[in-house]
Amino acid sequence: MRMVDLIEKKRNGLAHTKEEIDFIINGYSTGTIPDYQVSAWAMAIYFQGMTQDERANLTEAMVHSGDTIDLSAIEGIKVDKHSTGGVGDTTTLILAPLVAAIGVPVAKMSGRGLGHTGGTIDKLEAIPGFSVEITNDTFIDLVNRNKAAVIGQTQNLTPADKKLYGLRDVTATVNSIPLIASSIMSKKLAAGADAIVLDVKTGAGAFMKELDDSKELARAMVDIGNNLGRRTSAIISDMSQPLGRMIGNALEVKEAIDTLNGRGPEDLTELCLQLGSHMAVLAEKAATLDEGRKLLEEAIQSGKALEQFKVFIEAQNGDASVVDHPETLPTASNKIDVKATKSGYVASIVADQIGTAAMLLGAGRQTTDSVIDLAVGIELTKKIGDYVEAGEPIAILHANEAGVEEATKKILDSYEITDEKVKEPTLIYDIIQ
Amino acid sequence: MRMVDLIEKKRNGLAHTKEEIDFIINGYSTGTIPDYQVSAWAMAIYFQGMTQDERANLTEAMVHSGDTIDLSAIEGIKVDKHSTGGVGDTTTLILAPLVAAIGVPVAKMSGRGLGHTGGTIDKLEAIPGFSVEITNDTFIDLVNRNKAAVIGQTQNLTPADKKLYGLRDVTATVNSIPLIASSIMSKKLAAGADAIVLDVKTGAGAFMKELDDSKELARAMVDIGNNLGRRTSAIISDMSQPLGRMIGNALEVKEAIDTLNGRGPEDLTELCLQLGSHMAVLAEKAATLDEGRKLLEEAIQSGKALEQFKVFIEAQNGDASVVDHPETLPTASNKIDVKATKSGYVASIVADQIGTAAMLLGAGRQTTDSVIDLAVGIELTKKIGDYVEAGEPIAILHANEAGVEEATKKILDSYEITDEKVKEPTLIYDIIQ
Repeated sequence: MRMVDLIEKKRNGLAHTKEEIDFIINGYSTGTIPDYQVSAWAMAIYFQGMTQDERANLTEAMVHSGDTIDLSAIEGIKVDKHSTGGVGDTTTLILAPLVAAIGVPVAKMSGRGLGHTGGTIDKLEAIPGFSVEITNDTFIDLVNRNKAAVIGQTQNLTPADKKLYGLRDVTATVNSIPLIASSIMSKKLAAGADAIVLDVKTGAGAFMKELDDSKELARAMVDIGNNLGRRTSAIISDMSQPLGRMIGNALEVKEAIDTLNGRGPEDLTELCLQLGSHMAVLAEKAATLDEGRKLLEEAIQSGKALEQFKVFIEAQNGDASVVDHPETLPTASNKIDVKATKSGYVASIVADQIGTAAMLLGAGRQTTDSVIDLAVGIELTKKIGDYVEAGEPIAILHANEAGVEEATKKILDSYEITDEKVKEPTLIYDIIQ
Repeated sequence: MRMVDLIEKKRNGLAHTKEEIDFIINGYSTGTIPDYQVSAWAMAIYFQGMTQDERANLTEAMVHSGDTIDLSAIEGIKVDKHSTGGVGDTTTLILAPLVAAIGVPVAKMSGRGLGHTGGTIDKLEAIPGFSVEITNDTFIDLVNRNKAAVIGQTQNLTPADKKLYGLRDVTATVNSIPLIASSIMSKKLAAGADAIVLDVKTGAGAFMKELDDSKELARAMVDIGNNLGRRTSAIISDMSQPLGRMIGNALEVKEAIDTLNGRGPEDLTELCLQLGSHMAVLAEKAATLDEGRKLLEEAIQSGKALEQFKVFIEAQNGDASVVDHPETLPTASNKIDVKATKSGYVASIVADQIGTAAMLLGAGRQTTDSVIDLAVGIELTKKIGDYVEAGEPIAILHANEAGVEEATKKILDSYEITDEKVKEPTLIYDIIQ
């Protein structure tokens, strides 16, 4: 087999066999196939696409390029949740204790934030003492005991995907549905879950700005998961504005506590209940989505979900007293209002610019080695559809030293205010199974 | 400017500016833009094409990546002839003295053969003593004195094209009309001619197997040449079978002598007269193609063309006595008939397989450092449309030791013989100006 012939085959719109995909991914991983052939091949895929079989085979080949996590020692059906990334997305912090409270085991491997998107590990580390640096054995033991644990990405998972993604990033071949779907799904599969619920974001703040593209990506990922024997479903949710009201690490922990208390923002609560219902069904803890939702609502009302959050925090060395006393979480020195310059209805908020504004305050990383400030962030006091008077705050900066001026400008630039009434955006666009 | 943005631009079907093309070619030449970005870009061009301006700019950027030959010290309009490569294509050996005989200056830079195609330098070196290793000054002086000289590719011409071609060869991006056209034209322009006549081959033995592709390539090259101020025209000629009857270095010299004597094969003679007429018109030695043809026919009939060949050979240290005594050229020890296994009409000859058969006898190079045997080759006694009796020779091998069995098999496999009468193939399909 010669790589040049395989590039030509894909260029001509033909489908690769499983052996061909294995040859390419193995060769690329071990360095016998050079970058310049793989980038030409990726560009051919951009134009010619991949069949369902090719996507499944590519995903599997990337899974097998590195370690895989064995979660078989955990009782029950392990369901993973994955978001394609947005701004102010605190769902993992809420869902882990919430679905654990109804008996769904959550064995979650998480990452850190970069650019305008936050990371679950950063948020958890805003809780004093909380550590994701636990051994695999501890991780599995914790899930068996408490139904929920979070571990950092310490293993050598899907190195072929990492290498391929790095190459795609500099060769304008990121934007290919089969390649994106295989990349995400390979990481999920390597992480060992039995079933996967995907939260595919759509809108200005999402990776996929167009609803059709988001649906296509969701469909591609659900098909790959199901083809490879993992029950997978996806929700298409709105990212035309940040989710909830808080952006920033400690701020999002507070918002998670509020939501587990039943006092969270409506959109964040609703998305968590929907994602959680899917997780409950896939984990066979509920027969229907409605039944799952009812169980989750009860867990919130009874205080069981909040209790579960405390257990989860304590088990990973965190100070669980923050749940009852969120004021003890890291707090920024200054609260600065960002005031509307005109009266009217909020028509749009450029979500990724809000994420960038939070990053400028120190809540996020510009590069992977940036040091972040867990206390700072942005609280949105007005969202799409809200009426605001000129001079009234649309947002509050929780700031220490850095970035106040730039963040203020970015937020003002991100808000469009109009005279006409504006409808709230749809939260859930579609469910793909 | 970032290369990744330029790849994306091309991927999205947009046209590059001159500055962008210069940035890419300069960056690639100097190594600041890596192979893996250029191969992805080439694949994007494969799918999205290039505008006429882009093609001209790419050609010019590659010309300026290395040395260019200055032919301004040669009087008159210098016309170059280029063939896209075929089997048994002896036209350069004939055209150089033929058009020189009517006053068209020929300053020809030539190469060696590889694979199934021969090279002009190899053929000339079958003439004892002939040397293409002359200085630039001698080269120019010889053209001024004798109207014709041939020099080897000793200069650092279009290094960016060489590098890009090498990359395309291993990334399945050779087959792109804008890239092929720019590559060929950059070499022609760097070689300094004022006008260019292109012989674009079409058919089984050619790089372009389909007539439509050949026409598109011819049109692309003619447009590039004219856009860059070099008058350019193209002939689309048949390569469904080898040109003439001889394949092999000394054998093709003999055939060239025959043709300059007015006793050459019909197809080879006709193609030379047509290409020569275009050269005469572009060099302003004839007002019309008909007038050019008449001048060339006269030069053959009067013996002036043959005389010019002798002068040309002597000027480059060759033994011009071979022109009157071609039997003194290198001769193979054995002549072996390849006999038809059935009676009928020759319906097709796979030209590149005949070229490969000649290579197996030692006439051509398998790799660039192969040593060739100037004496050996193949004489085709039957061509498309000819009737042959079973047992009658279709070809004669001129062989020393190597490859007789394999070459015989290849030739027999290449000939298709049918019961029905077969029409001779068209020689000239189109003229593009």
